Amino acid sequence: MTYELFYWPEIQGRGEFVRLALEDAGADYRDVARTRAGFRRMMRLMARGTDTPSFAPPFLRDGKHVIGQTAAILFYLGPCLDLAPRNESKRLWVHQIQLTLADMVAEIHDTHHPLGPSLYYEDQKRPARLRSDSFLKERVPKFMGYFDRLIGRSGGPFLTGRRATYADLSLFQVVEGLRYAFPRHMGKAERTVGRVVAVRDRVSERSGLAAYLESDRRLPFSTEGIFRHYPELDKGRG
Amino acid sequence: MTYELFYWPEIQGRGEFVRLALEDAGADYRDVARTRAGFRRMMRLMARGTDTPSFAPPFLRDGKHVIGQTAAILFYLGPCLDLAPRNESKRLWVHQIQLTLADMVAEIHDTHHPLGPSLYYEDQKRPARLRSDSFLKERVPKFMGYFDRLIGRSGGPFLTGRRATYADLSLFQVVEGLRYAFPRHMGKAERTVGRVVAVRDRVSERSGLAAYLESDRRLPFSTEGIFRHYPELDKGRG
Repeated sequence: MTYELFYWPEIQGRGEFVRLALEDAGADYRDVARTRAGFRRMMRLMARGTDTPSFAPPFLRDGKHVIGQTAAILFYLGPCLDLAPRNESKRLWVHQIQLTLADMVAEIHDTHHPLGPSLYYEDQKRPARLRSDSFLKERVPKFMGYFDRLIGRSGGPFLTGRRATYADLSLFQVVEGLRYAFPRHMGKAERTVGRVVAVRDRVSERSGLAAYLESDRRLPFSTEGIFRHYPELDKGRG
Repeated sequence: MTYELFYWPEIQGRGEFVRLALEDAGADYRDVARTRAGFRRMMRLMARGTDTPSFAPPFLRDGKHVIGQTAAILFYLGPCLDLAPRNESKRLWVHQIQLTLADMVAEIHDTHHPLGPSLYYEDQKRPARLRSDSFLKERVPKFMGYFDRLIGRSGGPFLTGRRATYADLSLFQVVEGLRYAFPRHMGKAERTVGRVVAVRDRVSERSGLAAYLESDRRLPFSTEGIFRHYPELDKGRG
Protein backbone atom coordinates (compact mmCIF):
# COMPACT_ATOMS: atom_id res chain seq x y z
CA MET A 1 0.00 0.00 0.00
CA THR A 2 1.40 3.38 -1.02
CA TYR A 3 1.01 6.15 1.53
CA GLU A 4 0.01 9.51 0.15
CA LEU A 5 1.37 12.57 1.90
CA PHE A 6 -0.27 15.91 1.23
CA TYR A 7 1.70 19.05 2.01
CA TRP A 8 2.70 22.38 0.49
CA PRO A 9 5.13 21.48 -2.26
CA GLU A 10 7.75 24.19 -1.84
CA ILE A 11 8.69 24.17 1.81
CA GLN A 12 9.84 21.65 4.40
CA GLY A 13 7.37 22.97 6.96
CA ARG A 14 5.46 20.65 9.22
CA GLY A 15 5.25 18.07 6.45
CA GLU A 16 8.96 17.45 6.86
CA PHE A 17 8.44 15.73 10.20
CA VAL A 18 6.30 13.15 8.42
CA ARG A 19 8.66 12.90 5.44
CA LEU A 20 11.59 12.14 7.72
CA ALA A 21 9.73 9.19 9.21
CA LEU A 22 8.63 7.84 5.83
CA GLU A 23 12.10 8.26 4.35
CA ASP A 24 13.91 6.80 7.34
CA ALA A 25 11.74 3.69 7.13
CA GLY A 26 12.07 3.42 3.37
CA ALA A 27 8.28 3.49 3.13
CA ASP A 28 6.49 3.50 -0.18
CA TYR A 29 4.90 6.94 -0.36
CA ARG A 30 3.92 9.65 -2.78
CA ASP A 31 4.41 13.33 -1.99
CA VAL A 32 1.22 14.18 -3.79
CA ALA A 33 1.31 17.97 -4.05
CA ARG A 34 4.70 17.75 -5.77
CA THR A 35 3.31 15.56 -8.54
CA ARG A 36 1.48 16.68 -11.63
CA ALA A 37 -2.02 17.93 -10.73
CA GLY A 38 -1.32 16.88 -7.17
CA PHE A 39 -1.65 20.34 -5.69
CA ARG A 40 -5.19 20.73 -6.95
CA ARG A 41 -6.04 17.30 -5.60
CA MET A 42 -4.75 18.33 -2.18
CA MET A 43 -6.86 21.49 -2.14
CA ARG A 44 -9.91 19.54 -3.20
CA LEU A 45 -9.39 16.89 -0.53
CA MET A 46 -8.90 19.51 2.14
CA ALA A 47 -12.21 21.19 1.36
CA ARG A 48 -14.25 18.01 0.90
CA GLY A 49 -14.03 14.49 -0.42
CA THR A 50 -12.97 12.86 2.85
CA ASP A 51 -14.84 12.00 6.03
CA THR A 52 -12.08 13.51 8.11
CA PRO A 53 -11.20 16.86 6.51
CA SER A 54 -8.10 18.55 7.84
CA PHE A 55 -7.87 22.17 8.88
CA ALA A 56 -4.51 22.45 7.10
CA PRO A 57 -1.82 20.27 5.54
CA PRO A 58 -0.04 18.01 6.23
CA PHE A 59 -2.41 15.09 6.03
CA LEU A 60 -1.81 11.49 5.08
CA ARG A 61 -3.92 9.01 3.18
CA ASP A 62 -3.47 5.32 3.89
CA GLY A 63 -6.17 3.48 1.97
CA LYS A 64 -9.45 4.65 3.40
CA HIS A 65 -7.89 6.45 6.35
CA VAL A 66 -7.13 10.15 6.01
CA ILE A 67 -5.33 11.64 9.00
CA GLY A 68 -4.34 15.24 9.65
CA GLN A 69 -2.23 17.01 12.28
CA THR A 70 1.48 16.22 12.18
CA ALA A 71 1.66 14.59 15.59
CA ALA A 72 -1.44 12.48 14.93
CA ILE A 73 -0.02 11.31 11.59
CA LEU A 74 3.19 10.24 13.33
CA PHE A 75 1.24 8.55 16.11
CA TYR A 76 -0.58 6.57 13.43
CA LEU A 77 2.50 5.77 11.37
CA GLY A 78 4.91 5.08 14.22
CA PRO A 79 4.27 1.38 14.80
CA CYS A 80 3.73 0.68 11.07
CA LEU A 81 7.16 2.14 10.27
CA ASP A 82 8.81 0.54 13.28
CA LEU A 83 9.48 4.02 14.62
CA ALA A 84 7.40 3.70 17.78
CA PRO A 85 6.60 0.94 20.24
CA ARG A 86 3.32 -0.93 19.77
CA ASN A 87 2.61 -1.03 23.49
CA GLU A 88 -0.03 1.65 24.04
CA SER A 89 1.46 3.42 27.04
CA LYS A 90 4.94 3.55 25.52
CA ARG A 91 3.45 4.71 22.27
CA LEU A 92 1.62 7.48 24.11
CA TRP A 93 4.83 8.58 25.79
CA VAL A 94 6.53 9.03 22.40
CA HIS A 95 3.46 10.97 21.31
CA GLN A 96 3.66 13.20 24.38
CA ILE A 97 7.27 14.06 23.52
CA GLN A 98 6.23 14.78 19.93
CA LEU A 99 3.51 17.16 21.15
CA THR A 100 6.10 19.02 23.21
CA LEU A 101 8.31 19.26 20.12
CA ALA A 102 5.26 20.61 18.27
CA ASP A 103 4.78 23.27 20.95
CA MET A 104 8.38 24.30 20.46
CA VAL A 105 7.93 24.40 16.67
CA ALA A 106 4.93 26.72 17.08
CA GLU A 107 7.07 29.03 19.22
CA ILE A 108 9.82 28.92 16.60
CA HIS A 109 7.32 30.10 13.99
CA ASP A 110 6.30 32.91 16.31
CA THR A 111 9.89 34.22 16.44
CA HIS A 112 9.52 35.69 12.95
CA HIS A 113 5.73 36.12 12.96
CA PRO A 114 4.80 37.32 16.45
CA LEU A 115 1.97 39.44 15.07
CA GLY A 116 0.49 36.48 13.26
CA PRO A 117 0.54 34.86 9.85
CA SER A 118 -1.31 37.62 8.00
CA LEU A 119 1.45 40.24 8.07
CA TYR A 120 4.78 39.96 6.26
CA TYR A 121 7.95 39.56 8.27
CA GLU A 122 9.05 42.98 7.02
CA ASP A 123 6.04 44.49 8.76
CA GLN A 124 6.88 42.96 12.13
CA LYS A 125 10.66 43.10 12.35
CA ARG A 126 10.90 44.84 15.69
CA PRO A 127 8.39 42.59 17.47
CA ALA A 128 10.14 39.63 15.83
CA ARG A 129 13.40 40.74 17.34
CA LEU A 130 11.92 41.02 20.82
CA ARG A 131 10.20 37.67 20.53
CA SER A 132 13.37 36.01 19.20
CA ASP A 133 15.43 37.45 22.04
CA SER A 134 13.24 35.91 24.70
CA PHE A 135 12.83 32.69 22.77
CA LEU A 136 16.59 32.20 22.50
CA LYS A 137 17.32 33.31 26.01
CA GLU A 138 14.58 31.49 27.88
CA ARG A 139 12.70 29.00 25.76
CA VAL A 140 15.53 27.28 23.90
CA PRO A 141 17.35 26.29 27.11
CA LYS A 142 14.10 25.23 28.72
CA PHE A 143 12.97 23.01 25.83
CA MET A 144 16.43 21.70 24.94
CA GLY A 145 17.28 21.07 28.56
CA TYR A 146 14.09 19.05 28.89
CA PHE A 147 14.88 16.88 25.86
CA ASP A 148 18.45 16.46 27.04
CA ARG A 149 17.25 15.24 30.43
CA LEU A 150 14.87 12.78 28.80
CA ILE A 151 17.75 11.23 26.89
CA GLY A 152 19.81 11.00 30.07
CA ARG A 153 16.92 9.52 31.98
CA SER A 154 16.13 6.88 29.34
CA GLY A 155 19.72 5.63 29.42
CA GLY A 156 20.06 6.82 25.82
CA PRO A 157 21.21 7.09 23.23
CA PHE A 158 17.72 8.16 22.09
CA LEU A 159 14.86 10.06 23.74
CA THR A 160 13.13 6.94 24.98
CA GLY A 161 16.03 4.51 25.14
CA ARG A 162 17.92 2.21 22.86
CA ARG A 163 15.70 2.49 19.82
CA ALA A 164 15.09 5.56 17.71
CA THR A 165 11.51 6.73 17.29
CA TYR A 166 9.94 9.37 15.08
CA ALA A 167 10.41 11.81 17.97
CA ASP A 168 14.19 11.46 17.58
CA LEU A 169 13.86 12.22 13.88
CA SER A 170 11.80 15.29 14.78
CA LEU A 171 14.38 16.37 17.35
CA PHE A 172 17.01 16.08 14.60
CA GLN A 173 14.87 18.36 12.41
CA VAL A 174 14.42 20.93 15.18
CA VAL A 175 18.17 21.08 15.78
CA GLU A 176 18.85 21.38 12.06
CA GLY A 177 16.24 24.09 11.70
CA LEU A 178 17.55 26.06 14.67
CA ARG A 179 21.10 25.80 13.32
CA TYR A 180 19.88 27.23 10.03
CA ALA A 181 17.83 30.00 11.64
CA PHE A 182 20.09 30.98 14.52
CA PRO A 183 23.63 29.76 13.70
CA ARG A 184 25.42 32.15 16.03
CA HIS A 185 23.16 31.44 18.95
CA MET A 186 23.12 27.69 18.46
CA GLY A 187 26.91 27.51 18.29
CA LYS A 188 26.89 28.40 21.96
CA ALA A 189 23.56 26.96 23.08
CA GLU A 190 24.41 23.44 21.97
CA ARG A 191 27.34 23.19 24.36
CA THR A 192 25.04 22.47 27.28
CA VAL A 193 22.88 19.85 25.58
CA GLY A 194 25.39 17.31 24.35
CA ARG A 195 22.90 14.44 24.41
CA VAL A 196 20.54 16.30 22.10
CA VAL A 197 23.42 16.96 19.70
CA ALA A 198 24.38 13.30 19.86
CA VAL A 199 20.83 12.30 18.88
CA ARG A 200 21.01 14.72 15.97
CA ASP A 201 24.29 13.13 14.84
CA ARG A 202 23.10 9.55 15.18
CA VAL A 203 19.88 10.27 13.31
CA SER A 204 21.76 11.93 10.45
CA GLU A 205 23.79 8.76 9.98
CA ARG A 206 20.87 6.38 9.65
CA SER A 207 20.98 4.96 6.15
CA GLY A 208 17.48 5.90 5.00
CA LEU A 209 17.80 9.38 6.42
CA ALA A 210 21.29 9.99 5.08
CA ALA A 211 20.20 9.00 1.57
CA TYR A 212 17.17 11.26 1.80
CA LEU A 213 19.15 14.24 3.07
CA GLU A 214 21.41 14.02 0.03
CA SER A 215 18.56 13.59 -2.44
CA ASP A 216 16.65 16.36 -4.19
CA ARG A 217 13.56 15.27 -2.30
CA ARG A 218 14.98 17.14 0.70
CA LEU A 219 14.07 20.76 0.09
CA PRO A 220 16.44 23.36 1.47
CA PHE A 221 15.56 25.47 4.50
CA SER A 222 14.38 28.90 3.37
CA THR A 223 12.75 32.09 4.57
CA GLU A 224 9.39 30.67 3.52
CA GLY A 225 9.31 27.92 6.11
CA ILE A 226 8.99 27.52 9.88
CA PHE A 227 12.71 27.97 10.50
CA ARG A 228 13.91 31.22 8.94
CA HIS A 229 17.32 32.76 8.90
CA TYR A 230 17.18 36.51 9.44
CA PRO A 231 20.61 37.52 10.75
CA GLU A 232 19.12 40.37 12.78
CA LEU A 233 17.18 37.88 14.90
CA ASP A 234 20.23 35.76 15.72
CA LYS A 235 21.86 37.35 18.68
CA GLY A 236 24.63 34.91 19.25
CA ARG A 237 23.89 34.64 22.91
CA GLY A 238 24.31 31.26 24.47
CA MET B 1 -9.15 4.12 40.90
CA THR B 2 -8.90 7.84 41.59
CA TYR B 3 -7.38 9.90 38.81
CA GLU B 4 -4.96 12.59 39.89
CA LEU B 5 -4.88 15.76 37.84
CA PHE B 6 -1.91 18.08 38.23
CA TYR B 7 -2.34 21.67 37.11
CA TRP B 8 -1.72 25.23 38.31
CA PRO B 9 -4.24 25.75 41.09
CA GLU B 10 -5.39 29.29 40.36
CA ILE B 11 -6.34 29.37 36.70
CA GLN B 12 -8.52 27.38 34.34
CA GLY B 13 -5.78 27.24 31.72
CA ARG B 14 -5.14 24.11 29.71
CA GLY B 15 -6.02 21.97 32.71
CA GLU B 16 -9.64 23.02 32.28
CA PHE B 17 -10.00 20.94 29.11
CA VAL B 18 -9.18 17.87 31.19
CA ARG B 19 -11.35 18.95 34.12
CA LEU B 20 -14.36 19.36 31.86
CA ALA B 21 -14.01 15.77 30.68
CA LEU B 22 -13.55 14.39 34.20
CA GLU B 23 -16.45 16.43 35.56
CA ASP B 24 -18.79 15.65 32.67
CA ALA B 25 -18.21 11.94 33.21
CA GLY B 26 -18.54 12.17 36.97
CA ALA B 27 -15.09 10.61 37.28
CA ASP B 28 -13.42 10.11 40.62
CA TYR B 29 -10.49 12.51 40.52
CA ARG B 30 -8.36 14.72 42.70
CA ASP B 31 -7.20 18.14 41.57
CA VAL B 32 -3.91 17.66 43.35
CA ALA B 33 -2.33 21.12 43.27
CA ARG B 34 -5.44 22.57 44.93
CA THR B 35 -5.09 20.26 47.89
CA ARG B 36 -2.88 20.73 50.93
CA ALA B 37 0.78 20.21 50.00
CA GLY B 38 -0.39 19.24 46.53
CA PHE B 39 1.40 22.06 44.76
CA ARG B 40 4.77 20.97 46.05
CA ARG B 41 4.00 17.41 45.03
CA MET B 42 3.23 18.58 41.51
CA MET B 43 6.51 20.48 41.21
CA ARG B 44 8.42 17.48 42.52
CA LEU B 45 6.73 15.10 40.09
CA MET B 46 7.40 17.41 37.18
CA ALA B 47 11.11 17.54 37.87
CA ARG B 48 11.55 13.86 38.64
CA GLY B 49 9.85 10.92 40.29
CA THR B 50 8.11 9.63 37.17
CA ASP B 51 9.33 7.74 34.12
CA THR B 52 7.47 10.11 31.85
CA PRO B 53 8.20 13.62 33.12
CA SER B 54 6.13 16.39 31.57
CA PHE B 55 7.50 19.62 30.21
CA ALA B 56 4.66 21.51 31.88
CA PRO B 57 1.30 20.90 33.57
CA PRO B 58 -1.31 19.61 33.05
CA PHE B 59 -0.47 15.97 33.59
CA LEU B 60 -2.56 13.10 34.83
CA ARG B 61 -1.74 10.14 36.99
CA ASP B 62 -3.77 6.97 36.62
CA GLY B 63 -2.13 4.33 38.76
CA LYS B 64 1.31 3.78 37.29
CA HIS B 65 0.64 5.82 34.15
CA VAL B 66 1.60 9.49 34.14
CA ILE B 67 0.57 11.33 30.98
CA GLY B 68 1.25 14.93 30.00
CA GLN B 69 0.10 17.20 27.17
CA THR B 70 -3.58 18.13 27.27
CA ALA B 71 -4.54 16.44 24.01
CA ALA B 72 -2.67 13.26 24.92
CA ILE B 73 -4.39 13.15 28.33
CA LEU B 74 -7.78 13.44 26.64
CA PHE B 75 -6.82 10.83 24.06
CA TYR B 76 -6.01 8.50 26.95
CA LEU B 77 -9.09 9.33 29.01
CA GLY B 78 -11.62 9.52 26.16
CA PRO B 79 -12.69 5.88 25.94
CA CYS B 80 -12.44 5.34 29.73
CA LEU B 81 -14.84 8.23 30.32
CA ASP B 82 -17.09 7.27 27.43
CA LEU B 83 -16.19 10.55 25.77
CA ALA B 84 -14.53 9.06 22.69
CA PRO B 85 -15.08 6.00 20.51
CA ARG B 86 -12.96 2.91 21.21
CA ASN B 87 -12.46 2.19 17.52
CA GLU B 88 -8.91 3.37 16.80
CA SER B 89 -9.52 5.34 13.63
CA LYS B 90 -12.56 7.14 15.06
CA ARG B 91 -10.64 7.80 18.22
CA LEU B 92 -7.81 9.30 16.18
CA TRP B 93 -10.26 11.54 14.33
CA VAL B 94 -11.50 13.01 17.62
CA HIS B 95 -7.86 13.48 18.62
CA GLN B 96 -7.12 15.28 15.36
CA ILE B 97 -9.97 17.72 16.04
CA GLN B 98 -8.63 18.23 19.58
CA LEU B 99 -5.18 19.05 18.20
CA THR B 100 -6.72 21.67 15.92
CA LEU B 101 -8.53 23.13 18.94
CA ALA B 102 -5.16 23.16 20.72
CA ASP B 103 -3.62 25.09 17.83
CA MET B 104 -6.39 27.63 18.14
CA VAL B 105 -5.86 27.87 21.91
CA ALA B 106 -2.15 28.59 21.35
CA GLU B 107 -3.09 31.40 18.98
CA ILE B 108 -5.56 32.75 21.53
CA HIS B 109 -2.75 32.94 24.08
CA ASP B 110 -0.63 34.79 21.53
CA THR B 111 -3.28 37.52 21.20
CA HIS B 112 -2.23 38.99 24.55
CA HIS B 113 1.35 37.71 24.58
CA PRO B 114 2.65 38.05 21.02
CA LEU B 115 6.16 38.81 22.27
CA GLY B 116 6.20 35.69 24.37
CA PRO B 117 5.52 34.59 27.91
CA SER B 118 8.46 36.41 29.53
CA LEU B 119 7.11 39.95 29.15
CA TYR B 120 4.05 41.32 30.92
CA TYR B 121 0.98 42.18 28.88
CA GLU B 122 1.53 45.82 29.80
CA ASP B 123 4.86 45.69 27.98
CA GLN B 124 3.36 44.40 24.75
CA LYS B 125 0.03 46.18 24.44
CA ARG B 126 0.50 47.53 20.95
CA PRO B 127 1.73 44.24 19.43
CA ALA B 128 -1.12 42.52 21.31
CA ARG B 129 -3.60 44.82 19.62
CA LEU B 130 -2.20 44.08 16.17
CA ARG B 131 -2.14 40.37 16.81
CA SER B 132 -5.68 40.41 18.21
CA ASP B 133 -6.95 42.33 15.20
CA SER B 134 -5.73 39.77 12.73
CA PHE B 135 -6.75 36.88 14.97
CA LEU B 136 -10.32 38.13 15.22
CA LYS B 137 -10.57 39.12 11.59
CA GLU B 138 -8.94 36.11 9.96
CA ARG B 139 -8.31 33.25 12.33
CA VAL B 140 -11.57 33.13 14.29
CA PRO B 141 -13.71 32.77 11.14
CA LYS B 142 -11.29 30.23 9.71
CA PHE B 143 -11.20 28.02 12.81
CA MET B 144 -14.86 28.44 13.74
CA GLY B 145 -15.98 27.94 10.15
CA TYR B 146 -14.00 24.70 10.09
CA PHE B 147 -15.60 23.39 13.29
CA ASP B 148 -19.03 24.47 12.07
CA ARG B 149 -18.56 22.54 8.82
CA LEU B 150 -17.47 19.45 10.73
CA ILE B 151 -20.71 19.51 12.70
CA GLY B 152 -22.72 19.92 9.51
CA ARG B 153 -20.84 17.14 7.82
CA SER B 154 -21.22 14.69 10.71
CA GLY B 155 -25.00 15.15 10.67
CA GLY B 156 -24.70 16.69 14.14
CA PRO B 157 -25.55 17.67 16.66
CA PHE B 158 -21.92 17.20 17.77
CA LEU B 159 -18.55 17.48 16.02
CA THR B 160 -18.41 13.81 15.12
CA GLY B 161 -22.10 12.91 15.10
CA ARG B 162 -24.76 11.91 17.55
CA ARG B 163 -22.56 11.44 20.59
CA ALA B 164 -20.62 14.12 22.42
CA THR B 165 -16.87 13.61 22.81
CA TYR B 166 -14.27 15.48 24.82
CA ALA B 167 -13.66 17.60 21.70
CA ASP B 168 -17.19 18.98 22.04
CA LEU B 169 -16.48 19.87 25.66
CA SER B 170 -13.30 21.62 24.53
CA LEU B 171 -15.20 23.49 21.83
CA PHE B 172 -17.62 24.64 24.54
CA GLN B 173 -14.66 25.94 26.56
CA VAL B 174 -13.18 27.78 23.57
CA VAL B 175 -16.50 29.51 22.88
CA GLU B 176 -16.90 30.42 26.55
CA GLY B 177 -13.35 31.73 26.70
CA LEU B 178 -13.72 33.79 23.55
CA ARG B 179 -16.98 35.24 24.85
CA TYR B 180 -15.19 36.29 28.02
CA ALA B 181 -12.17 37.71 26.20
CA PHE B 182 -13.83 39.31 23.20
CA PRO B 183 -17.52 39.85 24.04
CA ARG B 184 -18.13 42.56 21.47
CA HIS B 185 -16.48 40.68 18.68
CA MET B 186 -18.08 37.34 19.49
CA GLY B 187 -21.55 38.88 19.59
CA LYS B 188 -21.23 39.32 15.86
CA ALA B 189 -18.89 36.47 14.96
CA GLU B 190 -21.18 33.81 16.36
CA ARG B 191 -23.97 34.64 13.95
CA THR B 192 -22.30 32.74 11.13
CA VAL B 193 -21.48 29.59 13.12
CA GLY B 194 -24.82 28.53 14.51
CA ARG B 195 -23.86 24.87 14.77
CA VAL B 196 -20.86 25.71 16.97
CA VAL B 197 -23.09 27.79 19.23
CA ALA B 198 -25.59 24.92 19.39
CA VAL B 199 -22.80 22.56 20.53
CA ARG B 200 -21.85 25.07 23.20
CA ASP B 201 -25.47 25.19 24.40
CA ARG B 202 -25.98 21.44 24.40
CA VAL B 203 -22.74 20.83 26.28
CA SER B 204 -23.64 23.41 28.93
CA GLU B 205 -26.85 21.51 29.64
CA ARG B 206 -25.26 18.13 30.26
CA SER B 207 -25.93 17.23 33.86
CA GLY B 208 -22.34 16.63 34.98
CA LEU B 209 -21.12 19.75 33.27
CA ALA B 210 -23.95 21.97 34.46
CA ALA B 211 -23.35 20.92 38.07
CA TYR B 212 -19.64 21.58 37.71
CA LEU B 213 -20.11 25.00 36.14
CA GLU B 214 -22.18 26.08 39.13
CA SER B 215 -19.77 24.67 41.68
CA ASP B 216 -16.81 26.46 43.21
CA ARG B 217 -14.55 23.94 41.50
CA ARG B 218 -15.07 25.96 38.32
CA LEU B 219 -12.64 28.85 38.61
CA PRO B 220 -13.66 32.09 36.95
CA PHE B 221 -11.99 33.31 33.77
CA SER B 222 -9.39 35.96 34.60
CA THR B 223 -6.55 37.97 33.14
CA GLU B 224 -4.14 35.32 34.41
CA GLY B 225 -5.32 32.59 32.06
CA ILE B 226 -5.29 31.75 28.36
CA PHE B 227 -8.44 33.74 27.62
CA ARG B 228 -8.07 37.30 28.86
CA HIS B 229 -10.44 40.20 28.69
CA TYR B 230 -8.66 43.42 27.80
CA PRO B 231 -11.33 45.72 26.33
CA GLU B 232 -8.78 47.43 24.08
CA LEU B 233 -8.17 44.13 22.25
CA ASP B 234 -11.87 43.51 21.57
CA LYS B 235 -12.69 45.40 18.44
CA GLY B 236 -16.29 44.37 18.06
CA ARG B 237 -15.82 43.46 14.43
CA GLY B 238 -17.75 40.51 13.14
